[in-house]
Amino acid sequence: MKTNHIAILGATGVVGKTMLRVLEERNFPLTKLTLLASERSVGTIMKYKGQDLMIELACPEAFTGVDIVLGAVSNEMAVYFAPYIKAANALFIDNSSAFRMDPKVPLVVPEINPDDAFLHKGIISNPNCSTIITCMAIYNLARISPITHMFTATYQAVSGAGQAGLDELLNQTDDFSHDHALHASIFSEPILHNIIPQIADLLANGYTSEEMKMQDESRKILHLPNLKVSCTCVRVPVLRSHSIAISLQTYEPITVSEAEEKLSHTIGIIYSNHDLPTPYKTSNQDLVLVGRLRPDLVFQNGLSLFACGDQLRKGAATNAIQIAELFI
Amino acid sequence: MKTNHIAILGATGVVGKTMLRVLEERNFPLTKLTLLASERSVGTIMKYKGQDLMIELACPEAFTGVDIVLGAVSNEMAVYFAPYIKAANALFIDNSSAFRMDPKVPLVVPEINPDDAFLHKGIISNPNCSTIITCMAIYNLARISPITHMFTATYQAVSGAGQAGLDELLNQTDDFSHDHALHASIFSEPILHNIIPQIADLLANGYTSEEMKMQDESRKILHLPNLKVSCTCVRVPVLRSHSIAISLQTYEPITVSEAEEKLSHTIGIIYSNHDLPTPYKTSNQDLVLVGRLRPDLVFQNGLSLFACGDQLRKGAATNAIQIAELFI
Repeated sequence: MKTNHIAILGATGVVGKTMLRVLEERNFPLTKLTLLASERSVGTIMKYKGQDLMIELACPEAFTGVDIVLGAVSNEMAVYFAPYIKAANALFIDNSSAFRMDPKVPLVVPEINPDDAFLHKGIISNPNCSTIITCMAIYNLARISPITHMFTATYQAVSGAGQAGLDELLNQTDDFSHDHALHASIFSEPILHNIIPQIADLLANGYTSEEMKMQDESRKILHLPNLKVSCTCVRVPVLRSHSIAISLQTYEPITVSEAEEKLSHTIGIIYSNHDLPTPYKTSNQDLVLVGRLRPDLVFQNGLSLFACGDQLRKGAATNAIQIAELFI
Repeated sequence: MKTNHIAILGATGVVGKTMLRVLEERNFPLTKLTLLASERSVGTIMKYKGQDLMIELACPEAFTGVDIVLGAVSNEMAVYFAPYIKAANALFIDNSSAFRMDPKVPLVVPEINPDDAFLHKGIISNPNCSTIITCMAIYNLARISPITHMFTATYQAVSGAGQAGLDELLNQTDDFSHDHALHASIFSEPILHNIIPQIADLLANGYTSEEMKMQDESRKILHLPNLKVSCTCVRVPVLRSHSIAISLQTYEPITVSEAEEKLSHTIGIIYSNHDLPTPYKTSNQDLVLVGRLRPDLVFQNGLSLFACGDQLRKGAATNAIQIAELFI
């Protein structure tokens, strides 16, 4: 398969911009790079390795000759463009959640289930950001003994809601220190100095779609179809990097020292039990920090731990580009 | 018992100041109010119902004639002053954690276990702030069927670290919007736009003392000596009000509608399944907001819910004053 002509679909959003930076940093072996966005961004210039690249219109004809499309658009737009990407014979690595649970679509974290990627029929989905970070922290523990149950509570950055979420927190920070009133439009109330315990819409079972992804997508990535996950997703006033408090139960007991040994040799994470995983430490890089490892006090064969990673990089852009690298 | 001469020990801290405000708001039937603090605050004037009150020195002789001492000082200071308070025949309602687990000392949340207060031998402990807020959300569920296991992840405000914690976040907010470097001294790294997943020191079992309070104190308050709690305590950049994501298992199943019915008639909380409990909504008032109620996906007889309350008021000052009111 040729992999030289890459397109970023949605190049002007926070994830799209991060994809551009990560392609450059990793010196991705591309021969042509096409940046696609909606009409209002057409003509805008973005830099790639010092060169000017002009944004082109994301339209059905835009994919001719493209080998891999990195998708950083909404579910609606991903569904709309998918048939045109397929018709152009390009591989669609999609960051939206539109196709993630489709049994024909692999859901891939390259450190965990790279082989799944090669079963694709034109689309590979990039998992949910909090789910990627959580799975990075636990996948090697699941290889000692399968994880059967998991509790997760998240601390999710505003950039999970895109550039507009980021701008809203930055504006509120500024307004607060100038004694101005705080305006909320992206979030349901001011997010500065606050937290909001709901991300995305509520489903019939009382969980949000964001919360159910933690169970459904973890099952698919970790090949644990019976894994039970109870998740609470909370927005916190952090610019980037999502954090997750995790308690898990395994089929057979894993001691803390076995787990420490395994986590210390896990690709893609840095495990430390004195250095705390925080958004400040993890922002703008690709590693997931894991710490606070201890026996869980509720689960029989249980461990508790804490993970934090940059959800725009490993939780989105970098993971998508790592998937693309599998095809080089 | 006479209850008219009240002293606040540690009147200049955030909890002490809040006690003063709450006494005033509740029109507490006192005949004399003494404000005690360390040497550097002596002579400072604080207002109570429009009157000037001068801070006096917290010293062994300060408790003569006092009926109730509301303690808002460190463990060390609480232990130091306790014998003098006892010698003065005053009741010591102590907000420190020094005596909480002493079997001779009641640990009281007046809505939950008021009768315990009357077993005191001179000291009544006010529970940990996150524990009070959590117990307020769950105590009436535990009356339908005993809670056996619980997972909690907290989102704790900086004022939990006192006035200095509050000042640190406010200064960092200001410094950020003026492009100045952020200085951290109270917290291990900047807390603005960040979270820190450790509060207090680590114990031998890998949990912090703050995390173990959730289990140990909940057992005592709820009269559930075998309750197992796995807790992760996290500092978030919120000025005041602690939030807690809770998953609990009960001995017998409780349906969501039974729980809703019970929570809707629980004194001290406001239950709503559409209005989200947030620090913005709960700050500077006494009610604990409870929401996000749903069946838990991991526990057999499980419920998940989310609680938020002002930890300086119901989590500290108001709860202490409600204890004092039991003796009027």
